[in-house]
Amino acid sequence: MKVDDFKIVGTSVRRVDGLDKVTGQAKYTGDIIVPGMVEGKFLRSPYAHARILSIDTAEAERLPGLVAILTAKDLGDIHPYLGRKDRKDQPIIAMDRVLYVGQPVVAVAAVDAFTAEEALGKIRVEYEETPFVISVPEAIADGAPLIHSFAPNNICFQDELIKGDVDKGFAESDEIFEDTFEFPMVYHYSMEPHTTIAKVDSEGITVWSSNTHPFGIRQEIAEVFGCSLSKVRVIVPLVGGAYGSKSGGKIEPLVVALARQAATAVRVRQSVPEAMMTVRRHSAICKVKTGVKRDGTLVAKQAEIYLNTGAFAETGPIVTGRTLTRILGPYRIPHIKVKAYCVYTNTVSAASFRSIGGPQTAWATESQMDIIAQKLGVDPVQFRRKNLLRRGEELKPKGNPLDADLFKALDSVTQKIGWDGPVSKNGSGRGVAFGVTDPGAPLASTATVHVLSDGSVVLLAGTIEVGQGARTIMSQIVAEELSVPLERVTMRSTDTAYTPFDRSTGSSRSTTVMGKAVQLAAQDARRQLLELAAEQFEAPFEAIALRDGVAAAGNKAAAYGDLIHRHFAMQGGEIVGCGYAHSGMAPKPSNPLFWEIGIGAVEVEVDRETGAIRVKKYVSAADVGKALHPIQCEGQDEGAAMMGVGHTFYESIIYEGGQIVNSSLIDYKVPTFDDVPDEFEAILIEDQNGPGPYGAKGMGEGGIIPVAPAIANALAWSTGARIKELPLTPERVWRSLQKRV
Amino acid sequence: MKVDDFKIVGTSVRRVDGLDKVTGQAKYTGDIIVPGMVEGKFLRSPYAHARILSIDTAEAERLPGLVAILTAKDLGDIHPYLGRKDRKDQPIIAMDRVLYVGQPVVAVAAVDAFTAEEALGKIRVEYEETPFVISVPEAIADGAPLIHSFAPNNICFQDELIKGDVDKGFAESDEIFEDTFEFPMVYHYSMEPHTTIAKVDSEGITVWSSNTHPFGIRQEIAEVFGCSLSKVRVIVPLVGGAYGSKSGGKIEPLVVALARQAATAVRVRQSVPEAMMTVRRHSAICKVKTGVKRDGTLVAKQAEIYLNTGAFAETGPIVTGRTLTRILGPYRIPHIKVKAYCVYTNTVSAASFRSIGGPQTAWATESQMDIIAQKLGVDPVQFRRKNLLRRGEELKPKGNPLDADLFKALDSVTQKIGWDGPVSKNGSGRGVAFGVTDPGAPLASTATVHVLSDGSVVLLAGTIEVGQGARTIMSQIVAEELSVPLERVTMRSTDTAYTPFDRSTGSSRSTTVMGKAVQLAAQDARRQLLELAAEQFEAPFEAIALRDGVAAAGNKAAAYGDLIHRHFAMQGGEIVGCGYAHSGMAPKPSNPLFWEIGIGAVEVEVDRETGAIRVKKYVSAADVGKALHPIQCEGQDEGAAMMGVGHTFYESIIYEGGQIVNSSLIDYKVPTFDDVPDEFEAILIEDQNGPGPYGAKGMGEGGIIPVAPAIANALAWSTGARIKELPLTPERVWRSLQKRV
Repeated sequence: MKVDDFKIVGTSVRRVDGLDKVTGQAKYTGDIIVPGMVEGKFLRSPYAHARILSIDTAEAERLPGLVAILTAKDLGDIHPYLGRKDRKDQPIIAMDRVLYVGQPVVAVAAVDAFTAEEALGKIRVEYEETPFVISVPEAIADGAPLIHSFAPNNICFQDELIKGDVDKGFAESDEIFEDTFEFPMVYHYSMEPHTTIAKVDSEGITVWSSNTHPFGIRQEIAEVFGCSLSKVRVIVPLVGGAYGSKSGGKIEPLVVALARQAATAVRVRQSVPEAMMTVRRHSAICKVKTGVKRDGTLVAKQAEIYLNTGAFAETGPIVTGRTLTRILGPYRIPHIKVKAYCVYTNTVSAASFRSIGGPQTAWATESQMDIIAQKLGVDPVQFRRKNLLRRGEELKPKGNPLDADLFKALDSVTQKIGWDGPVSKNGSGRGVAFGVTDPGAPLASTATVHVLSDGSVVLLAGTIEVGQGARTIMSQIVAEELSVPLERVTMRSTDTAYTPFDRSTGSSRSTTVMGKAVQLAAQDARRQLLELAAEQFEAPFEAIALRDGVAAAGNKAAAYGDLIHRHFAMQGGEIVGCGYAHSGMAPKPSNPLFWEIGIGAVEVEVDRETGAIRVKKYVSAADVGKALHPIQCEGQDEGAAMMGVGHTFYESIIYEGGQIVNSSLIDYKVPTFDDVPDEFEAILIEDQNGPGPYGAKGMGEGGIIPVAPAIANALAWSTGARIKELPLTPERVWRSLQKRV
Repeated sequence: MKVDDFKIVGTSVRRVDGLDKVTGQAKYTGDIIVPGMVEGKFLRSPYAHARILSIDTAEAERLPGLVAILTAKDLGDIHPYLGRKDRKDQPIIAMDRVLYVGQPVVAVAAVDAFTAEEALGKIRVEYEETPFVISVPEAIADGAPLIHSFAPNNICFQDELIKGDVDKGFAESDEIFEDTFEFPMVYHYSMEPHTTIAKVDSEGITVWSSNTHPFGIRQEIAEVFGCSLSKVRVIVPLVGGAYGSKSGGKIEPLVVALARQAATAVRVRQSVPEAMMTVRRHSAICKVKTGVKRDGTLVAKQAEIYLNTGAFAETGPIVTGRTLTRILGPYRIPHIKVKAYCVYTNTVSAASFRSIGGPQTAWATESQMDIIAQKLGVDPVQFRRKNLLRRGEELKPKGNPLDADLFKALDSVTQKIGWDGPVSKNGSGRGVAFGVTDPGAPLASTATVHVLSDGSVVLLAGTIEVGQGARTIMSQIVAEELSVPLERVTMRSTDTAYTPFDRSTGSSRSTTVMGKAVQLAAQDARRQLLELAAEQFEAPFEAIALRDGVAAAGNKAAAYGDLIHRHFAMQGGEIVGCGYAHSGMAPKPSNPLFWEIGIGAVEVEVDRETGAIRVKKYVSAADVGKALHPIQCEGQDEGAAMMGVGHTFYESIIYEGGQIVNSSLIDYKVPTFDDVPDEFEAILIEDQNGPGPYGAKGMGEGGIIPVAPAIANALAWSTGARIKELPLTPERVWRSLQKRV
C-alpha cells in the first residue's frame, strides 16, 4: 500500500469517543454502579514510620451500616505482597508497621461513604513512632533508620552504565563541569483519581478499575489471591488520564480483599489527596560531571543519579535503570560512567510517570549543556549540533542504533522559533533542549477483528482509552485495512474475560505495538473476506478488490455482509481476524523497539521585579514516524509540553515532618489554560520509518522532557540566573536574580 | 485420534455449572440488576379480536413513581414488525387492533412492580369487539373473520410434499385406513418465564434476556430500531429451560422500546400466565389416509395437516414445512401426497417447540400404524420392520439419505422392554413408536479458544446453557483437543458485544454444529502451541507431544504458559484459536445435517374403573453418534420422554370464549416426579457416524416424539380403546373404555 493511497489513516477524523465525551455520556469507573455495591474507605497511617501495636475496631464494628472491616490479620492465606518477582515489598495493607503517611492500615466498607468515613473515626490504632527519612540524603546517611531490612543504606536498587574510561576522558578534557541538579516530587494529576470496584463470588474475582494495565492487575490479583488468570476479570471503561499513575496494581488488590471480606461488591473512590498518597513521580538528585574539549567536543561524562522511590519499590528499579541512558542526552560521548540509585524513603511510592526518568535526567544534562556552552562562549544550538548523534549511531554500548534524524528535528524547532542566538534582539531568552528516550514499549499485544454479517466491524483490543485517542487510532487502522468507512468500526471497552491480551497501555507502545496487532488482525479478516469473495465469485484471489465495504471482481460485487451470509449458509455468521505483536516484532526484544524523539525550543520573558517567567513562544517537535491522526499527535505533544510547564513552574510535593502539606489542588498548582504559551506549536516529523503500522512509532512522552531545561536555559542566557532546582517559582527566580545583582 | 484415546470426551465428568446451580449461586436474567433499572409491565388485550378505539393514559401518567408509558403511537420512526422477511406480521405492541387475549397493548415502566401494576389499572382502553376464531375449523370456515387481510381463509402458509402417484397407490392397496388425530395446544413450561432487561444509551442498545437466540434477537432489534448489529448488545446468562419458547425475539423488542421511552433501564419479568400468553406449541389436526397391501407393505399415504399458529406467523411456516416429512414416519412409502396448512387464529402465537411438528405428526402416523397392524392382525413391531427404511435410503425425494440403523434402534428398545407381543402375559399393554426427524440444525457457528499465559483456557462460544449441559460438553471438547485438565477450561457467558457469532441454541444443533466450531478453534490453538514448542525446542512440529498442559519433545518440556510467555517476549501473552462451522460442513446446506433418531417402547397398566394409565416401563433409545457426556445424553433423552408424558396425559391449553382458562400451573398440570415410569431407561446408540465432533450428532428432541402414540397403542392393544385425541385423561380413557363395553 503506498502512502498516498491511505484513505483514513493519516487523516484527523472525528474522535470516535468525542461525542460521548463532550455530551457527558462517556462512562468512567466512577460512573459504574454494581448491584449491592457498598462504599469502601481506607484508614491511613498518620506517621511516616511506626510500628503498629494494636488495632481496635470494636467501636467501629458496632456502627449501624458498617459492612466489613479489614486489617492485615484478615488476609488469611493469600500472598499479600505486590511488586516485581524479585522485590515483592509492598503489602496490600499495612502489616505490623507503617512506612509512610497515607499508607492504608485498615479498610472499611459500609452502606454509604459517610458511614464508612464515620467508621474510620471510630477505629483506634496504637502506633510506636520510629525515626523516618524523607529525602535521599537523609535516607543514605550513615546510621539512617532502615526502611526494609533487606536493603542496606535504604538502597532499593542500583545500576550502572560504563563505556570507555571516564578517568582517561576527564584527563583528556580541557574543561570539566560539575553540577548538581534537583528535580521535585510531582504528582501525575490525571482528572480521574484512582477508583476501583471489586466483587468476589462463585464466578471468581471481578474488578472494575481506572487502570491502564488491566491484564497486569489480572496477573497481580491472580498471584495475590492464588487463582488462575481465567478466574480474574478486569473491566476498564474509559479512563480519565493516567500518565503512569494507573500502571499496574494500585488500590485494586486491597479493594478485592475488602470485597471478599464484605461478601459483596465494594467501591473505593479516592479523592485527589488520597490519589497523591498512592503514587507520584520520583524526585531526583543528579550529580553530573562532564569533560569537554575547548572546541566543544564532549569527551567524558560521569553521573550519579539518586531517585527517591518512597516506601516501596513499585516500578522504581525500572525507572532507575532507564535513567542510565536518559542522563546521557543524544550526544556522542566516548567515556561514560553513570551510576543510578533507587532509594527507599518514608514517602509515597514513586512509580512510572510519562517518560520514566526522562525529565529528571534531561533537566540535569540539558541544563548543563548550556552551562558548558555559556562557559565556552558558543551558541548552545551549535554546541549541540557538534555532539549530536547521527542516525544509526548507538547511544550506549550494544544499544540499538538511533532510528531518527536529530539534526532535522533540531532544525525544525530552531527555524520555527527564529533562532539567531540564545538572546533575542529585544532581550528575550531562548532555550532549546532534547528529549531522546527509549520508551521501553514492551511487546505482547493481541487483537481480534470481527466482521459481522451486516458489514459492521468490531475490534477487541485491550488498549485503554485514557484520552490519548487510542480508540480512534485503532479504529482508523481497522477501517483502513478492511476498506470500510470509519463509522462501521466499533472498538469495545476492555473486559479481560473476553478481550484478548495486551501487555499494557503506556510506554508509548499502543499505536506501535497494539497498532501492529490490530493491523495484522484486520489483515487476517481482510484475507478471509477476499477468500470468500474469490470462492463465491469464482475469481482468482488477486482479482478481488475491496472498497467501501464491498468486494468486487469484474462485474460481480457483494457487500461484506452478503459474502458472510452466503458462506455461513444464509444463517448470519462472522469473520474473526486475529493478530499478534510478539517477540518476532523486534530483533532483540530487550532493546528499544524505537527511539522516541522530543525536542523543545522556547522564548521567555522574565519579570525581574517578581521573578515571574512568561513563555512567549514554545515549539515542540516529535518524530512520530507516521502520524496516523495528526491532530491527536499534536494534542499529545502539546499536552506533554504543558505537563512539563507544570513541573517547570509550579509542581512539587512538599513534605514537612513526614506529612505532605500540599496534597490538594488548592496548594498543589497544575497548569491551566492561562499557562499556555502565547505562541505554541507542535511539529510532527514523519519519516515513515517506525516499526508500527504504516511506519508509525510511539510519541506523547518526548514532549514533556525538554521544557524545564529549555526554559531554565533561556532564563540563564537572558538574565545570567542559572537555577538547578525545580520548580522555577517566581521567588526562586527572584532570589537568583538578586544574587546576580 | 482413536476413539479409545479420548481422555475427557465420552466421560460423564462433573457438570461445570453444577456446583453453582446446586448452591443457588447460578445467575439468571432475573438475578441481574442494572443500575437505575425500573420495572415494566404490559397491559394486555382482554379480547380475542377487537379494534382499539382509544387509549387514555392520563390518569396513569399522574401516578407518582410512573416512569414511562408506551403505546403504538410512541414508536416513532422504527419498523415495529417482527417475523420472517416475507411475513413481518407481528407488531411489537398492538397497533390499531388486538388479535388475541394477552396481546400487549400498553407498556408501562415504574419505580417498582406494584406501581407499574397500579398504573395498568388506571389506563382506559376502548375496544370495539369483532368476531374471533379460536380453532382451525372455525378459522378456515367459509365466511370466517379474517385475521390478516393478506391471508385469505386465514391460511398463513401452506406447503406440500408429493412423491409417486398417490391415487395409483390407493388403487393398488388392499386396505385403506383413514383417521383423524388431534394434538392439543401445549405450553413449553420452562422453569424460568421470559425475562428481559433493556437499556438504550449513547453506546447503543443493551439487552439482558433469557433467550436462546442472542444473535437472532440482536438481528431483530437492529432491524426494528434501524441500527447496525455492532450497536446492539445482547447478554444472556444461564437460562432456566427453553424448549423453543425462547427462540428469537419474544418480549425483547418491546422492552427495548419501553426502555427507550423511559430513558433508563427497564426490566420485565413475566409470570407463568404471561409466559403462556407469549408463546405455545402448535395444536394440530392430522387427517391421514394410508393404503397397504394385505401382507403389510405400505403403498400410499395421503395426509392433510392443519396447524393452529395463533395470531402471528412466528416460526409457524417453518414448523409447517417440517411436518411434511415428519408425518411420513421412517417408512418406505412409494406414493405420498401431504399437504400442510399453517392457520391463523385469535390465539397466542405458536412457535418452535422441542422437535418442531414432530409429536403432532407422529401422534397421527404412529397411532395409525398400530390401527393398521391390529386390522391386519400382525405384530406392530413386525409390521414396522417390514416397512422400515434402511440406512442410506431417502425419506423424501431428493432428501438426504438416512444416516442411522433403525433396525438396531428398534431391536434395542424391544429387547429391553421384553417384547413378545403388544399384550404381555399378565395383560399389560405394550406399544412402540418412532421419532425420526430432520432437526434442521442450521449451520453457522463461530468460536474462539484462548490459551492464557498461565495455561488456563477461555472459550468464547455463543451457545446458551439452558440446562442441557452445553457448557460442560463444549469445555470437554476444548480440554480434549488441547490436552489440558477440564478444570482449566472456562466457557464464558454469551455477550454479543464480545462473543463471536452463533446461529442459535436449539434444533439439536449445539453439540454438532457449535461443537465442530469449538473443536476447530481448539485445534487451531493447539496447532499454534505446537508451533511455539517446535520453534522454542528447535524440534520438528511432529515431534512435539502435548499432555496435561505441557508440551514435550525429547528431553525438553514446557508448560503452555511458559511457551506463551517466551513467545511474547516474557510480557504475558495469549494464543487465540478460531473455528467456524459454515456451509462447508454439509454437502447441501438445505438438507438435514443429520437425522435425529428417537424410539420409545412402553408397557402400561390401565385402571378400567378410573381410566387412569400407569406407565410401568418406558424405554427410550437415541442414536447420538457419539455420547460426549453419556449421563447428560441420558438425562436429555429421559427429560424429553417425560415432556412427552406431559402432553400424553395432562397438557392442553383450553380456550373458552377467546380466553385461556388454565393459564396457571394449578390448572395446567405438567409431569412431576410422581409421573416417572416405574422402570425408565434411556439407551444411547453410538455409531460414531455423526457430522459433529468425534462423530456426535444432535439429540434431546427425538425422545419426546414416540411417547404419546406408544402409550395410546399399548392402551388400544390391551383394552381395545383407540383414542385419537390427546391428552389421554382418565375421563377420556374411561369414556372410551365405556364405549367398548
